[in-house]
Amino acid sequence: MVNQIYKQVFSFFLSVLFLQSSTVSYVRKSFDLNKPCRHFVLYLHNIAYDDDNAANATAATIVNPLGLGDYSFGRVIICDNPVTMDQNYLSKPVARAQGFYFYNKKTNFNTWVAWTLVFNSTKHKGTFTIMDANPYGMEPTRDLAIVGGTGDFLMTRGIATLKTKLSQGSKYFCLEMNIKLYECY
Amino acid sequence: MVNQIYKQVFSFFLSVLFLQSSTVSYVRKSFDLNKPCRHFVLYLHNIAYDDDNAANATAATIVNPLGLGDYSFGRVIICDNPVTMDQNYLSKPVARAQGFYFYNKKTNFNTWVAWTLVFNSTKHKGTFTIMDANPYGMEPTRDLAIVGGTGDFLMTRGIATLKTKLSQGSKYFCLEMNIKLYECY
Amino acid sequence: MVNQIYKQVFSFFLSVLFLQSSTVSYVRKSFDLNKPCRHFVLYLHNIAYDDDNAANATAATIVNPLGLGDYSFGRVIICDNPVTMDQNYLSKPVARAQGFYFYNKKTNFNTWVAWTLVFNSTKHKGTFTIMDANPYGMEPTRDLAIVGGTGDFLMTRGIATLKTKLSQGSKYFCLEMNIKLYECY
Repeated sequence: MVNQIYKQVFSFFLSVLFLQSSTVSYVRKSFDLNKPCRHFVLYLHNIAYDDDNAANATAATIVNPLGLGDYSFGRVIICDNPVTMDQNYLSKPVARAQGFYFYNKKTNFNTWVAWTLVFNSTKHKGTFTIMDANPYGMEPTRDLAIVGGTGDFLMTRGIATLKTKLSQGSKYFCLEMNIKLYECY
Repeated sequence: MVNQIYKQVFSFFLSVLFLQSSTVSYVRKSFDLNKPCRHFVLYLHNIAYDDDNAANATAATIVNPLGLGDYSFGRVIICDNPVTMDQNYLSKPVARAQGFYFYNKKTNFNTWVAWTLVFNSTKHKGTFTIMDANPYGMEPTRDLAIVGGTGDFLMTRGIATLKTKLSQGSKYFCLEMNIKLYECY
Repeated sequence: MVNQIYKQVFSFFLSVLFLQSSTVSYVRKSFDLNKPCRHFVLYLHNIAYDDDNAANATAATIVNPLGLGDYSFGRVIICDNPVTMDQNYLSKPVARAQGFYFYNKKTNFNTWVAWTLVFNSTKHKGTFTIMDANPYGMEPTRDLAIVGGTGDFLMTRGIATLKTKLSQGSKYFCLEMNIKLYECY
């Protein structure tokens, strides 16, 4: 009889294991958004090239706006922006934000962004890429998707919450980037 | 003897748990492609800017083709296209497709696409991004990768199957987008 | 008494199952980087368009550099590059690398890359996309993120390790791409 119980428990156990390893049709997970596996805040500084500031410029327009609407539709900017731990743009950069962005709305300031954060210090080596719409003219706080990475950020995914901290016309802006990673390897 | 069985079952059980929690060298999963965790069909409308239709235009060429081959190699388009639930471009948009695409083949019509679907209604808030080659001149049906998202589509991944439903020269096209998400959070 | 043991084991078992299915706040996994689920080496060939080689060209500059620094800042290239199994650019292509890249650094040769590898043979059908910074002027070996795919590479993720094998001024280069996929479906 004891033997029988053993068999029952064992077979039940095996059936559960079998169920766990069988074909999965999709992945559905619940996240507690307040508990990322990594969480840090960075500041990005964008100094626009104006033909006279080659030494300081960190970003430059490569295609000018079309004149379709009043919100720079069509302007494309390439950047290699310093990223710091605090809001002071003279602080030592901990990463560079490399990539591009462009204006794509007729009725408001709205950019589409693809930025790779490149870390290359003794503390952190690796990259991750933020890619999403950035409706900064409409929303003070924007969530952008983090879609992949390398090195210390191997295959990471998550959310970058952006806030504009300072904006000086078309010359300079500073963004707070609240980085929340939910997949860490 | 009963005690012994208990120990056996228990140790077997522990060993399985241990195996499950040990280092994973990679993730290999099988999907039933017919069972996404979310599935819906949308229609994208692209009205090209021609210098005279600023009020209606939803997309504009920002770099003209090079003259390398006869298939618009080098043309770059930025868009903020309305996305509707049916094929009528006058229907109320449920999302915008923000991003860009360009022509990159000498021998046929082929685009490379990066579009973020932006939902901002009482029903759905959030984004997801489609990014892939789109060989529309060669294949009536194309699968494009969905690589990340935010809000209601947090960290989602999947496939967008595209079909051209209508194409009026270089002025207008309508795409059916069959969205299948296999990772939902 | 035997019955009691059965109950104990059973309830312990249920509690573990319950723990496994409860809300996950994040995904943390360890990878053995030496054990990808798929691993192969490919070679990419880029023949730059120079206005006289339309038949052979596989890539073309669509935006010229700005003159900001001496490292082509602002140059944008669109490509449909052949990808082969060996270093000979005349070998039969197994895929095309479709996409774009641009130069974005004032102080060294550095590109930002978004390339979709498109496979369309009897052996392999599908795509995957490499997107990341590519600091080829500074690092002989660069890891770039693979962020999504379709077909045989459905939803794949991983790393492409790039090495420049040959570079002939601005006319031609050949890259070794060591592809390591860690998520396979």
